[in-house]
Amino acid sequence: MQELKIDLGARSYPIYIGDGLLSRSDLFGRHIGSGALAIVTNTTVAPLYLETLKQALSTRRVLDVVLPDGEQFKTLATVERVLDALATARFNRDSAVLALGGGVVGDMAGFAASCYQRGIAFVQVPTTLLAQVDSSVGGKTGVNHPAGKNLIGAFHQPVCVIADTATLGTLPERELRSGIAEVIKHGMLGDAQFFAWIESNIERLLARDREALAFAIRRSCEIKASIVGIDERESGPRALLNLGHTFGHAIEAATAYSGWLHGEAVGAGLVMASDLSQRLGWIDQSELRRVRALLQKAGLARSAPQIGAQRALEFMGMDKKVRDDRIRLVLLKPLGAAVLAADYPADVLRSVVTDHFGAA
Amino acid sequence: MQELKIDLGARSYPIYIGDGLLSRSDLFGRHIGSGALAIVTNTTVAPLYLETLKQALSTRRVLDVVLPDGEQFKTLATVERVLDALATARFNRDSAVLALGGGVVGDMAGFAASCYQRGIAFVQVPTTLLAQVDSSVGGKTGVNHPAGKNLIGAFHQPVCVIADTATLGTLPERELRSGIAEVIKHGMLGDAQFFAWIESNIERLLARDREALAFAIRRSCEIKASIVGIDERESGPRALLNLGHTFGHAIEAATAYSGWLHGEAVGAGLVMASDLSQRLGWIDQSELRRVRALLQKAGLARSAPQIGAQRALEFMGMDKKVRDDRIRLVLLKPLGAAVLAADYPADVLRSVVTDHFGAA
Repeated sequence: MQELKIDLGARSYPIYIGDGLLSRSDLFGRHIGSGALAIVTNTTVAPLYLETLKQALSTRRVLDVVLPDGEQFKTLATVERVLDALATARFNRDSAVLALGGGVVGDMAGFAASCYQRGIAFVQVPTTLLAQVDSSVGGKTGVNHPAGKNLIGAFHQPVCVIADTATLGTLPERELRSGIAEVIKHGMLGDAQFFAWIESNIERLLARDREALAFAIRRSCEIKASIVGIDERESGPRALLNLGHTFGHAIEAATAYSGWLHGEAVGAGLVMASDLSQRLGWIDQSELRRVRALLQKAGLARSAPQIGAQRALEFMGMDKKVRDDRIRLVLLKPLGAAVLAADYPADVLRSVVTDHFGAA
Repeated sequence: MQELKIDLGARSYPIYIGDGLLSRSDLFGRHIGSGALAIVTNTTVAPLYLETLKQALSTRRVLDVVLPDGEQFKTLATVERVLDALATARFNRDSAVLALGGGVVGDMAGFAASCYQRGIAFVQVPTTLLAQVDSSVGGKTGVNHPAGKNLIGAFHQPVCVIADTATLGTLPERELRSGIAEVIKHGMLGDAQFFAWIESNIERLLARDREALAFAIRRSCEIKASIVGIDERESGPRALLNLGHTFGHAIEAATAYSGWLHGEAVGAGLVMASDLSQRLGWIDQSELRRVRALLQKAGLARSAPQIGAQRALEFMGMDKKVRDDRIRLVLLKPLGAAVLAADYPADVLRSVVTDHFGAA
């Protein structure tokens, strides 16, 4: 088992990474009080891992809350179901919520924990690679609103994150690759050596080698933790974690969040951000080629939908009224270090967007 | 105008108290950014003060959100209306929410601000005495759930509190007295001299003398601020602010929150807490008489509903299963200083509860 710490003063917490941690009742016991527990999970994960986790917590009063699976259920109405369950079971401030599942489960369980009695403890037990390397770390919780993703939520840090790499054994192939996109992102934005390690170990990751996965999770969490540690509430540097996301968002929005997994859209966005960085002379051709090649090997180099540059730019936040304004983008300068930039010529951005989304 | 500061480190903020502050655009300008503003209010307050406030903010983009008036609307569904309004108007992180009204409006507007985009700025503009002396200060926000009051919410501090004493001119008589109950509570729990000042000035307060009201608001906020400053999230000393509330809660719950205003129930609860403190020998007979006399003058010495000791104790949190446990109560030791106590004989509590709620 590996252990690393997210350093946030009074809200600091550890991340445990290893094989079979779902059964480690001692780890849970270290971080949760003596009160009642609610395991929030979904219909896909429950048949796989709920019993294992309940076994580990068998000396405790445990309530299950099994939600429908899917981003379309990440709404305030679903969070209200969780809150109703906690209230009906008369949970109090000593109670805790455990989020067993991927990013959607973690976001909703964390948000419910943040507002039940103005905040009770919660534990992240991520079961997807994307959640283990990204969404379970950093305290962002919330739900979508018809007017925008993650528009309603809270910053609420977990008391610990327990990432059991054994759960990755049952992960569908596309979701594994979607998680690898965020791993690659962490290398690109924060550590060129780690990026090189991923290049050398991509086959092991795709083959779900537990040791390789554990290292990739650990290093991703360390890079994310170092940024979250200096900017918990995203007033500045935390935006660097969005490398590839503004471009990726245009893909997700244009396809109404169907057909593309989040990590797949981020993968395509990482190529676009690198392409723009290269045209600005901030990374060189060989680095751009390395990014493309790695994403290709990871099965993450899909072509963007041909929606045309204008619509893509609008989805990226450059709407008609502010057509000449430059959006702040996370770019590379060089590979291994991200910067938040607005000092690029608008026509260079437009040419990149045209090349990827079509001219129409 | 008076100004005092709530000292909470990075979340510190000022409270402004004075006559006509609703028109002071400079005060608002000092604390809110350049983004759009939403004024959340209700159908009772809007016809009285919404235009005045909008006038003061006339150079800004302002959205009104007028909610139905009443504790029965303090629900997640109503907060969702506020969130929908913010999202539809595309509010961003530079936007702010202003709560114009009493405690219910402040609790809901503050909760909406806490979870819109994971937290945007909000300003408390309390228009009732109860909100000016109590609920607008300290950052507790939230809504009720069928299973309990204020069960869902957040700690979210305002960027400032603007208490315009002119708004108290239109306050219904019972609501004025309900606010005075919380003023008396602050004297009883934190400052015997202030309690004596209230005894000498109760007629001026009831006659809505602006200067007397401003002093009572200021001193109440100071006492509350000193406690919130050491225990923002209510892990300990903040519970002292609940003097009279556990007894009062039994009245509110037994009458299903109708027929009694919150401050009226607290007023009756203050007598009971003093009665118990006296029987324990922690205050003397003359002090108990002073408390009764002051609450009587303020029209706050109603007899509790005769629901019987057993039901009252259950509503106070002593349910059947833990009948022999002692609940922690806020008591006086002496008048002017509250303590959180569990070291009282259970039969003394029972005799007090029997005398006030009946034996049945």
